[in-house]
Amino acid sequence: MSRRAEGRGGRGPDVPDLVARARAGEARAVARLISLVEDGSPSLREVTAALAPHTGRAQVVGVTGAPGVGKSTSTNALVRALRDDDRSVGVLAVDPSSPFSGGALLGDRIRMGDHALDPGVFIRSMAARGHLGGLSWSTPQAIRVLDAAGFDVVLVETVGVGQSEVEVAGLADTTLVLLAPGMGDGIQAAKAGILEVGDVYVVNKADRDGAAQVARDLRSTLRLADRRDDAWAPPVLTTVAQTGEGVGGVVEALAEHRAWSLASGELTRRRERRARAEVEAIAVAALRRRWADVGGHAELGRLAAAVAAGESDPYAAADRLLQPEP
Amino acid sequence: MSRRAEGRGGRGPDVPDLVARARAGEARAVARLISLVEDGSPSLREVTAALAPHTGRAQVVGVTGAPGVGKSTSTNALVRALRDDDRSVGVLAVDPSSPFSGGALLGDRIRMGDHALDPGVFIRSMAARGHLGGLSWSTPQAIRVLDAAGFDVVLVETVGVGQSEVEVAGLADTTLVLLAPGMGDGIQAAKAGILEVGDVYVVNKADRDGAAQVARDLRSTLRLADRRDDAWAPPVLTTVAQTGEGVGGVVEALAEHRAWSLASGELTRRRERRARAEVEAIAVAALRRRWADVGGHAELGRLAAAVAAGESDPYAAADRLLQPEP
Repeated sequence: MSRRAEGRGGRGPDVPDLVARARAGEARAVARLISLVEDGSPSLREVTAALAPHTGRAQVVGVTGAPGVGKSTSTNALVRALRDDDRSVGVLAVDPSSPFSGGALLGDRIRMGDHALDPGVFIRSMAARGHLGGLSWSTPQAIRVLDAAGFDVVLVETVGVGQSEVEVAGLADTTLVLLAPGMGDGIQAAKAGILEVGDVYVVNKADRDGAAQVARDLRSTLRLADRRDDAWAPPVLTTVAQTGEGVGGVVEALAEHRAWSLASGELTRRRERRARAEVEAIAVAALRRRWADVGGHAELGRLAAAVAAGESDPYAAADRLLQPEP
Repeated sequence: MSRRAEGRGGRGPDVPDLVARARAGEARAVARLISLVEDGSPSLREVTAALAPHTGRAQVVGVTGAPGVGKSTSTNALVRALRDDDRSVGVLAVDPSSPFSGGALLGDRIRMGDHALDPGVFIRSMAARGHLGGLSWSTPQAIRVLDAAGFDVVLVETVGVGQSEVEVAGLADTTLVLLAPGMGDGIQAAKAGILEVGDVYVVNKADRDGAAQVARDLRSTLRLADRRDDAWAPPVLTTVAQTGEGVGGVVEALAEHRAWSLASGELTRRRERRARAEVEAIAVAALRRRWADVGGHAELGRLAAAVAAGESDPYAAADRLLQPEP
C-alpha cells in the first residue's frame, strides 16, 4: 500500500494519488475514496473536484422493489450476467438507518461472496444516514467515485421502503423495478408510485404461482399510461434470479434503455436534473451550517425563540433570516 | 356562512374574520384555515401571522406506533377520555401519500364518527405530501390553527412507517408511543428509535397474550437508559383501547408530562427547537423557489449543466450559487 495516500504528515489523504490509483483499478483506493465522501471528511470537496473530469461514462442503474422480491439475489445475478458480458460493475447497497443512532440497522452486509476475488466487481454497503428509508446524501458522491474509477455499470440497490424507489429514480440513468408474485396489498399500494419510476420491470420468482399474472397486470396497466409516441416503453421481463433464468434479457433491456437515453437526450436531461438536485442540496446544507453557527449568525436561535413565544411567526422569521447581513 | 370569509371580490379570504370565527368555535372556519395552510395558498403568510399571537396554549401530543397497534382506536378512546375530562381536542391524522401523485393513498378517512356532533372535537386528515411517510410541511401550520382556535389538546396521529415517529417527536410537546403484543420483529427493529422519542408508552391490546411481557421488556430496557436524575422517566401503561380500559391512566400521564415539561423548561426547549426547524424549512423553501426562478436566478440550471458535463463539481457549483449576486 502506498504510504502517501494514508496522509502526508497529518495533512490528510493524497487525493490526486488516490484518484489515480482508483482509476488504475485498485479496489483499496476506491474504498478509501468512498469512505472519504461518506464520512463527509474535510477532503470531500477536493475528492469531488478531482473526480469530476472523469465522470459521466458509467451507466447508473437503480435497483428497487419491496422487501421480499429478491433484490439482493437479483443484484447478484445481474452482476454475474454483466461480468459474462465482460462489463465491470460497482454495487452500492443502501441500508436504512436510524437518524438518531447514525448506525445502519442491518450492518455492513458481507454477502455476494461469489464476486469477492473478481477485480471487475466492487461492492459496498452504505448507510442512509438521516434520510428516511432513502438514499443518503453521500450516495451521489459514491456513484461519482465508481464512475470515475471506470466501472461500466454502477448498480444502486435500495431497500424498498416507502418511497425510496422515487429517490433512486432521481439518481439513476435507468431504474429497474423488481416485483414478485404473492406480495399482496403492498404491491397494490405502491403501484401508483412504481408505475412512474420504472424504465425496466422485472417480475422475479417467475417459477412461482401468480408470476405470469403479475406480469400481465403490469403490462396492461403500463399500456394505459399516457406516453408520447417517441417515449420509452418500459418492458416487463420475468426472471428466476436464484438460477439466473431470464437475467440475460434484463442485461439486454438495460443496454437498450441506455442506447435510447443517449439518442433521445433523456440521459442528459436526467443527469442535469440530478446535478441540479445535488447542487441545491449542498447549498442548502451549507446554509444550514451557516445558520447554526452561533458565532457567525446567531439570528436563527433568536428568531426561533420569538416564534415559540408567539411574538413572531415562522414566515416573518424566515424572511429576516434570508435578509443579507448589513 | 359569512360571505366575507369566502373572498372579497377575488381578493382572497378575509383572514382576520376567519381567525375570529375559528376562535369563537366555528368548525367551518377552522377547516377553512387548515385548507388555506395545507394548500399553500397565497394567504398562508397572512394566516400564520394572524394566528401567532394566539398560539402556545394547547398541549400538542404526537401519537405514533407501527401499523396494527391500534392507533386509530386509541386516538378515538383518548378523545373520549379527554372529553370526559371536559377538555376540547383537535385531531390531525397524517396519511402517507405519493410524492408523484400528490394524493393521499388512504384517502380522507371518514371515521371516529362518535364525535361527529361534538363541538369540542375537530378531526382532520392531512396528506404527507412530498415527505417520506412522515409529516407534511403544513402539519406544523395546521397545529397552529387548532392551537389558536383554543383546543386544549391537539393529537397528531401519524401512520407509523419507518422513522415518522422521529418526526412527530420533533413536532409534539408530548410523544405517545403505542405498542402491541405479537408485532414481532418490526418492533425489535424499530425499538432503538422508539426508545428515544417516547414520553409515554402504551401497550395496547393488553387483553392479548404477550402484552404483559412487552410491557415488562420495555420497562427494563427503559430503565437501562442513561437519564439524568431530574429527567422525565417515561411510564409504560397498558390499555384495551377497544373497551377504553386503562385510557384514563394515559390521560393522567399526558397531564403529568405536561406539568413536568412546564416546570423543567423542557416545553420551552422543545418549542424553540420546533420553531427553529420550521423557520429553517421555510427559509430553505423560499431559497429553492428563488433558485428555480428562471427569470431571477437562472444560475442553477447553468451550474447543473456544467456539473452534469463534468466541467464543474457540485461543491464548486453550490459555492457559486450562494455567492451574493453582483
